[in-house]
Amino acid sequence: MEVKLAKKYGFCFGVKRAINIAEKNKHATTFGPLIHNAKEIGRLQKDFNVSLSETLNQAQQFQSVIVRTHGITKGDLETLKNQQIHIVDATCPFVTKPQNIVEKMSNEGYQIVIFGDSNHPEVMGVASYGEDVIIAGSVEELENVKFKKKVALVSQTTKQPKLFGEIAAFLATKVNECRVFNTICNATFDNQSAVDELSREVDVMIIVGGKNSSNTKQLLKIAQKYCENSYLVEDENELEKAWFENKKLCGVSAGASTPDWIIQNVVAKIEQI
Amino acid sequence: MEVKLAKKYGFCFGVKRAINIAEKNKHATTFGPLIHNAKEIGRLQKDFNVSLSETLNQAQQFQSVIVRTHGITKGDLETLKNQQIHIVDATCPFVTKPQNIVEKMSNEGYQIVIFGDSNHPEVMGVASYGEDVIIAGSVEELENVKFKKKVALVSQTTKQPKLFGEIAAFLATKVNECRVFNTICNATFDNQSAVDELSREVDVMIIVGGKNSSNTKQLLKIAQKYCENSYLVEDENELEKAWFENKKLCGVSAGASTPDWIIQNVVAKIEQI
Repeated sequence: MEVKLAKKYGFCFGVKRAINIAEKNKHATTFGPLIHNAKEIGRLQKDFNVSLSETLNQAQQFQSVIVRTHGITKGDLETLKNQQIHIVDATCPFVTKPQNIVEKMSNEGYQIVIFGDSNHPEVMGVASYGEDVIIAGSVEELENVKFKKKVALVSQTTKQPKLFGEIAAFLATKVNECRVFNTICNATFDNQSAVDELSREVDVMIIVGGKNSSNTKQLLKIAQKYCENSYLVEDENELEKAWFENKKLCGVSAGASTPDWIIQNVVAKIEQI
Repeated sequence: MEVKLAKKYGFCFGVKRAINIAEKNKHATTFGPLIHNAKEIGRLQKDFNVSLSETLNQAQQFQSVIVRTHGITKGDLETLKNQQIHIVDATCPFVTKPQNIVEKMSNEGYQIVIFGDSNHPEVMGVASYGEDVIIAGSVEELENVKFKKKVALVSQTTKQPKLFGEIAAFLATKVNECRVFNTICNATFDNQSAVDELSREVDVMIIVGGKNSSNTKQLLKIAQKYCENSYLVEDENELEKAWFENKKLCGVSAGASTPDWIIQNVVAKIEQI
């Protein structure tokens, strides 16, 4: 099976930065998964003794706590700070940005709308910086909301620009003033448009990434638009031979938190089919 | 022919206010047409000796100058002020609002986008309050523009909300921050949705208003969506019998600058057909 990689795929700036930080902080713990990739987290544990604390209580047992790329809530950060714990901030700067915007706009009296998934850790973190916050994943979810006159809109970094525009369009005539902050990350754009392009020319498309990774799932959604034989795998063991029967060209891309070594394993296995 | 009037039509708040002001300022002149309705302007001339000055030079010959509902440019206003002419401001408050927003946002370093017709007096007036101003009537006109990082968006008061939303959606992902100010006038909304509703149930639709009135032309456009037999007339003399042949129900609406006495004449004539 011939394999063609997307022009842009895999690790973004924020993830590379976070892994670098983790590797430099041996024996620390991360509060929540550092990135949305269980295998890379396993590697950090094995090679650098960087553990994963699922709860704040667990994290507080460590002298040094790494704040994950997706950020944590303002309240949790304050709790850690109050405990005199050494905090290493690996929050992606593209996530810190909407956190700061929400805090500033909220202080200026704006109601906040976050375009994102309400149960995504990044969104929960960003939302915690505001007072009067609405989280919505689509225009439909906003249709019965009673808005204030002044609204500020931010986006989860991994959302699709087109849908973000739809939310902005909806708010434009619903309120007196809507401050639209484009907090979608360019890396997300780049990986997405590369998948959009590649999926038009291949017979089967494999997206490599964590099943709880928002940006990975977005890539799958985009791939499925033009290539109905599109699949999401966490590693090479999940590949199924049947997917490749009577197919000639396989496209491969990977989410922003998928390490290169996993992508290489997947590509190698597909090439052997 | 049976006639059904739209639920909302005709004079808006700003036009009523301007006519009131004009009637209280006998012998004054208006710089540019006070409202976009030649017949009402004729009435003000005849009954109140309020004349129409087409140029700044002409207007300067008068002791008292009325600023029209659509506003004038900042430069022209300053010229008049410098001449110690008594200025009576009949600018609609809904037009003063985008003028003030554009001035403030421009001072704060925002690039300005005005959704509107570049040759409309209201838009020319509003644009004159900013430094770095782009006027666009559609998304297409913005496609090759190089934007600054911070943009403020306002609308001509009489534009369609849906198209305004499209511009906001476009800008949402093109710049870092877009401040969207909804400066579309509610009266425009109300007249528009009443036409949208009425045009679905009638056989023929008559819009009464000035042919140079932007909001009147919008009403015609909306009417034509559901009623292909939609026509724009300035008064009853423009009605053509052929339009009503084999029709049962005629809907009537009127632009925001169409006086009631003209609408009554039109309705009376249709009822006789």
